Amino acid sequence: MAYINENFLKLKAGYLFPEIARRVKAFTEANPDAAARLIRCGIGDVTEALPEAVRYAMHDAVDEMGDRATFKGYGPEQGYDFLREAVAEHDFKARGLQVEADEIFISDGSKCDTGNILDIFGPGNRIAITDPVYPVYVDTNVMAGNTGEADDSGAYDGLVYLKCTAENGFVPEIPSEPVDLVYLCYPNNPTGATATRAQLEAWVAYARENKAVILYDAAYEAFIQDPAVPRSIFEIEGARDCAIEFRSFSKNGGFTGVRCAYVVIPKTLMGRKKDGSPHPLHPLWSRRHSTKFNGASYIVQKGAAALYTDEGKSQVKELVDHYMGNAALLVQACQDAGLSVFGGVNAPYVWVACPAGLTSWQMFDKMLNEANVVITPGSGFGSAGEGYFRISAFNSRANVEEVCRRIAALV
Amino acid sequence: MAYINENFLKLKAGYLFPEIARRVKAFTEANPDAAARLIRCGIGDVTEALPEAVRYAMHDAVDEMGDRATFKGYGPEQGYDFLREAVAEHDFKARGLQVEADEIFISDGSKCDTGNILDIFGPGNRIAITDPVYPVYVDTNVMAGNTGEADDSGAYDGLVYLKCTAENGFVPEIPSEPVDLVYLCYPNNPTGATATRAQLEAWVAYARENKAVILYDAAYEAFIQDPAVPRSIFEIEGARDCAIEFRSFSKNGGFTGVRCAYVVIPKTLMGRKKDGSPHPLHPLWSRRHSTKFNGASYIVQKGAAALYTDEGKSQVKELVDHYMGNAALLVQACQDAGLSVFGGVNAPYVWVACPAGLTSWQMFDKMLNEANVVITPGSGFGSAGEGYFRISAFNSRANVEEVCRRIAALV
Repeated sequence: MAYINENFLKLKAGYLFPEIARRVKAFTEANPDAAARLIRCGIGDVTEALPEAVRYAMHDAVDEMGDRATFKGYGPEQGYDFLREAVAEHDFKARGLQVEADEIFISDGSKCDTGNILDIFGPGNRIAITDPVYPVYVDTNVMAGNTGEADDSGAYDGLVYLKCTAENGFVPEIPSEPVDLVYLCYPNNPTGATATRAQLEAWVAYARENKAVILYDAAYEAFIQDPAVPRSIFEIEGARDCAIEFRSFSKNGGFTGVRCAYVVIPKTLMGRKKDGSPHPLHPLWSRRHSTKFNGASYIVQKGAAALYTDEGKSQVKELVDHYMGNAALLVQACQDAGLSVFGGVNAPYVWVACPAGLTSWQMFDKMLNEANVVITPGSGFGSAGEGYFRISAFNSRANVEEVCRRIAALV
Repeated sequence: MAYINENFLKLKAGYLFPEIARRVKAFTEANPDAAARLIRCGIGDVTEALPEAVRYAMHDAVDEMGDRATFKGYGPEQGYDFLREAVAEHDFKARGLQVEADEIFISDGSKCDTGNILDIFGPGNRIAITDPVYPVYVDTNVMAGNTGEADDSGAYDGLVYLKCTAENGFVPEIPSEPVDLVYLCYPNNPTGATATRAQLEAWVAYARENKAVILYDAAYEAFIQDPAVPRSIFEIEGARDCAIEFRSFSKNGGFTGVRCAYVVIPKTLMGRKKDGSPHPLHPLWSRRHSTKFNGASYIVQKGAAALYTDEGKSQVKELVDHYMGNAALLVQACQDAGLSVFGGVNAPYVWVACPAGLTSWQMFDKMLNEANVVITPGSGFGSAGEGYFRISAFNSRANVEEVCRRIAALV
């Protein structure tokens, strides 16, 4: 008989965003009149038009597909050189960072990458995640059998939870126990926090000392406004020996529906065999990528490469400025309403303490029912997120201004 | 320390197609004059222009992305309803088969799907593959830890190899020992064989009796010319209780560089828990898909949906007719050269016995060096493929005619 992977049965409830979608659907069905007033600031999904430079490039790519002389079939699984080289040049070398084109693996999304990366790691790793955290890191570890069962708070046995609180600025302290894999995401989803150079230096030093690997999710790098905040883990000396970085075109280029991202795996980065001897991770991921993936769409890769042209960069800047303008308004509105507010300065997420006495889901329901605004309950990101909610700045300016008015009226 | 997945170290040599690419590169570097004469019939990659209906639809989709009113961000992970419904209607219901839209999961490729499907199956399954076989089935099982080490012939301990030979028409006999997961691919890659209704009925009966699951890869369904040959495992009564089907737009629509495919998982299909109790596979895959994947590109899905329009269907038929015309020429040329030829009738692959005394790789090198034609060595697909080579019919008519002339001159 065909046995299932019973680790899936340990997963708690639905993945966060489907659960939000379920509650919103129930609300709009019960309140058809209110549905038109609904403003969605829940899921962190971009709302503005795809940059013109990207669209022009994709039109050209579609036309190339129409002529057998320029038609593209299977591409290199790791991505086309034109895109890998553009990434290496503009995202790294132009900033003085040593990342080569062949250390970059193009994919169809960071959600896939951060989940799939576990394929190359073995059993027996002690895995640390922040709390609150992007749920995909947790759920994919559950599926892979790297955890035990969840307790009543939703915390899984076997994971090391690194608490992120207002007290530590939502950047966790170095753990007292050794861990082997550490997920760090800065600018952070959901808290909007950033890590300082000194904090990342401490993490890199810890990882090198413990032969641990940092899985660094920099999907929101484009939103950093403060030049002192590191944009890449590879700005930290020694990170090439202990870190993998995930980047995405979803939020800077508006690619959430287009689908493109990349992973950086330095060739110097080592994992360990059971006997403790080193083995490079780069060839393992290369083999994984070429065996279980067939390259991102050529048309999409041409679109992504256009983000690195002068026009593309200028259009990305407009998008970032727009969303960060939204974030500033939301921060101000929440502060004016007397709420404790975090994030929203170098990140498109505003992280807000719930009014006294309300849990995260109670605040979610209150915002949905009374303000007709969809936010994300902090507890959906982990037990340390309880008592907070996340507002996404991905919206039109008019919607954000309306959300600000409703927050003022509600609280 | 961060432990690696040591199962990767069991993988033999490179994945077949990278190894071919390596030899071709070495040849063209050593023989720059011959490089221009090179004709590639190795990797099964389409060569003709993407259908016009697809390109029009993708241009429209790119334009939609340029207006925030029609912009599409994250889509449903399982695929847009417009595509799932088109698939259910045209590929199944119109043929009298009961497959619902919500049993269809859109993805970015069958290579990903056939690899990723192992995520929802647990340890302890006895896994059967045909020999020869599409290498991805094997390698992904090795990575997942479902095998032991390989022997000198490249066969992995723990896998059940079902020999496909000229004697059994390249459709394996029902195994004498019980197995839990069985990969079947018809029309077959690499042999070009098809399975009869009676043969598939026997497999479905076996799977139901043993509570096994058939992983049915129908990526080449569009090339079936004989109306008696089943196009889907779901044509067989009872298959909804024992089979998952993989389909792709790569070969019918020319999407190898565009990237779109789908999986059908009937809601009635059960796996088993360790205690033998049934558990549906559909929600497991749904959870896997929504946690580790973020939907195929909207632009790509719009393109795929256009394949189901009248124009799209007619353009697909032209492509299929073109490639099958090539296959007929290749079959004839090999027969005229006195070679034993299989496939090429309901499949775009021609499977040819090597001239006496030559191994598959020797024939590969001979074709490369003397005829400047890239073919695929049969042994790359498994030890039972030794002594054969595969010629792909995916090419221009002029190239195929030239290959036919070179075969006549060579053999």
